[in-house]
Amino acid sequence: MPSTICNGKNMSALNDGSILSPAGFMIGSASCGIKSSGNPDIALLVAREPCSAAGTYTRNRFAAAPVQWCRSLLPSDNMRAIAVNAGNANACTGERGVRDVQKSASLIADLLDCHAEQVGVASTGVIGKPLPMNKLDDGFRRAHASLTADKTGARKAERAILTTDTVPKAGAVEVSINGRTCRIGGMAKGSGMINPDMATMLAFITTDAAMRPETLQRLLRAACERSFNRITVDGDTSTNDTVLAMANGVTGIHITDSSDAEKSFMQGLRTLTTHLARAIAKDGEGATKLIEIKITGARDESDAERTARAVANSPLVKCAVHGEDPNWGRIVCAAGYGGAEFDPASLSLSLGGTRVFEDGLPTGEDARAAFTGESVCIRLDLGAGDARTTVWTCDLSEEYIKINSEYHT
Amino acid sequence: MPSTICNGKNMSALNDGSILSPAGFMIGSASCGIKSSGNPDIALLVAREPCSAAGTYTRNRFAAAPVQWCRSLLPSDNMRAIAVNAGNANACTGERGVRDVQKSASLIADLLDCHAEQVGVASTGVIGKPLPMNKLDDGFRRAHASLTADKTGARKAERAILTTDTVPKAGAVEVSINGRTCRIGGMAKGSGMINPDMATMLAFITTDAAMRPETLQRLLRAACERSFNRITVDGDTSTNDTVLAMANGVTGIHITDSSDAEKSFMQGLRTLTTHLARAIAKDGEGATKLIEIKITGARDESDAERTARAVANSPLVKCAVHGEDPNWGRIVCAAGYGGAEFDPASLSLSLGGTRVFEDGLPTGEDARAAFTGESVCIRLDLGAGDARTTVWTCDLSEEYIKINSEYHT
Repeated sequence: MPSTICNGKNMSALNDGSILSPAGFMIGSASCGIKSSGNPDIALLVAREPCSAAGTYTRNRFAAAPVQWCRSLLPSDNMRAIAVNAGNANACTGERGVRDVQKSASLIADLLDCHAEQVGVASTGVIGKPLPMNKLDDGFRRAHASLTADKTGARKAERAILTTDTVPKAGAVEVSINGRTCRIGGMAKGSGMINPDMATMLAFITTDAAMRPETLQRLLRAACERSFNRITVDGDTSTNDTVLAMANGVTGIHITDSSDAEKSFMQGLRTLTTHLARAIAKDGEGATKLIEIKITGARDESDAERTARAVANSPLVKCAVHGEDPNWGRIVCAAGYGGAEFDPASLSLSLGGTRVFEDGLPTGEDARAAFTGESVCIRLDLGAGDARTTVWTCDLSEEYIKINSEYHT
Repeated sequence: MPSTICNGKNMSALNDGSILSPAGFMIGSASCGIKSSGNPDIALLVAREPCSAAGTYTRNRFAAAPVQWCRSLLPSDNMRAIAVNAGNANACTGERGVRDVQKSASLIADLLDCHAEQVGVASTGVIGKPLPMNKLDDGFRRAHASLTADKTGARKAERAILTTDTVPKAGAVEVSINGRTCRIGGMAKGSGMINPDMATMLAFITTDAAMRPETLQRLLRAACERSFNRITVDGDTSTNDTVLAMANGVTGIHITDSSDAEKSFMQGLRTLTTHLARAIAKDGEGATKLIEIKITGARDESDAERTARAVANSPLVKCAVHGEDPNWGRIVCAAGYGGAEFDPASLSLSLGGTRVFEDGLPTGEDARAAFTGESVCIRLDLGAGDARTTVWTCDLSEEYIKINSEYHT
């Protein structure tokens, strides 16, 4: 289900959409040897025109050097490029890490004939190792030489930013505004250490609509809050989570605050970020199933959220889904310790469409079928109010343990 | 390390100690067929004299019927017995569950010629299935017929209360008070769904000292707070966690409030509950190692606690320990998202005795040896204050996934 974007009012999904679907962007990629596999590990996104740009980041106290760099720059009305490397997170690298980010930005700036402050930087990979700057220098030069507006370039870049991911994650939507159309495209990575509060997830969004940096920042934050911040693989919030967005305005479609245009754009942006977020949850390390957890009837949004996260992060629930066993007891138990205020007798639980628990008791309905597909839907109504939320996660498999215990620093 | 209790001032561990080490208690056990394995699944602890008794319980909103029963009875100055079954939790069983607990207590009361309100009840096992009362009736009668003050009886009972546990958990200490000695004994179970806020863990404590029920309640709560409430296997807080304590006073040693005697007794009680708690963490489902996480230098106790729990519940940290890889990055990352206030540059981390991280940077020291034994010690100093805590957990293995995904309701 993360592979399809549903069309909405004034909005349609683009077949084969990518970060290059909006006009005016180019992308390049290269392999510079940071990944021991020798696979591509560098991507460089460049806008022909200076862009409005915005970002949201990890709330981990050990925010990596590239996160600190982007935080200091954005929002901005003058961004030109985003440079990304995979295989090394440049986190817990101290002053040297900060200098290395500046060097990377300066190098790209020289290649593009702009200022270092016009270049965003994002990294993902191993923590605590200095960046191999010689390799990176070479990689960025070759990525720059490969810049293209052709979607084959986007496909290569989508793979270059991956680490333990098994599939690339990308998409684009077209939004109709006053009879004209603008586009929003994006790509993302993320598979382990995923509990974005803003995980090591990275996502990059482009659009050819025009808007102030502050508007883009506000829209991006709101869209992330209900998409990337609503997924979890392992409850581990990374040091490097970053979502960056660039709007180059080449369509001349202006997104002004509180306008109908903004509403339409926001719907498109949220649809795209939700698509990318679900793709990350589905591709969680070792995952075989996407799990959607819908909470309704919560007293307030914070209660809805803590209940959804308790269920989503319960290893017992995730193992039950992996084993295709509709173990309602583990789900109800997780809701019970999640910390929300509700009366146990008022809680109801449906798996797929089958009501398995209500009035404090199991109904005896057989929900086995609900757990056999590639995606599983868990709906909990707390019967305590009107607040609701949706969180996405994945099952927990022996493969997850293998990936993360055989990995050696 | 959980198998040895260290001696302290006025306190010594008893070799081969058990819940029958204090004078005046008897225990019986039986197999009644609730466990499909046919292993013993009933235990009955009986005091010859009416006891002061106290309890602490799960904070899960779906507290099981036996938890509700004990909550309504305790503290009490008149308890005679605790009846335990394993294999069925009597949780999410509605009104019927409540009636079944009353029936069990009444049956025991008839056998002992006392009131149902003098009988505590505890259950552990599958959620949402009604208790098979015919089997239980038979089991309790046979457990009663087997009552003994001999330690072989305690060894049988220790096994009867287990579910997915691989080893029994018991011990006793002797406390010297004004030249005389009293004893504190106990047994516990717990392996999965362990994140006691008060896990499915059960523990039962006996003593032959004398004290008011309110005193016992206060001491028990304080001891649990720093022992059972400081362990986690999977972050799942069960519906049935229960710790019950009975003091029969047969030694005539009075533990009065705020006395030196209370201090000595408390040290003994806390030593015993910590011993049992660590034994549960070490026997976590699929676990191969006990992990001790010591936080120091926190701004306040709540910051110490949230940091310890973030590290203890991080699947990535648990997998690294399983793989014997001293992955400091995952530990520092978990501390970074734990929510405590501290300056990343002030945090230091030692694995075993090796300092691997300080001043915001890895030291480059090799800590591989620290992860090869049966127990791993992680020490984090946040450099933000004087508060400290210790939490125990275990590694996360393929076996945990196997146990919990192959288990079918």
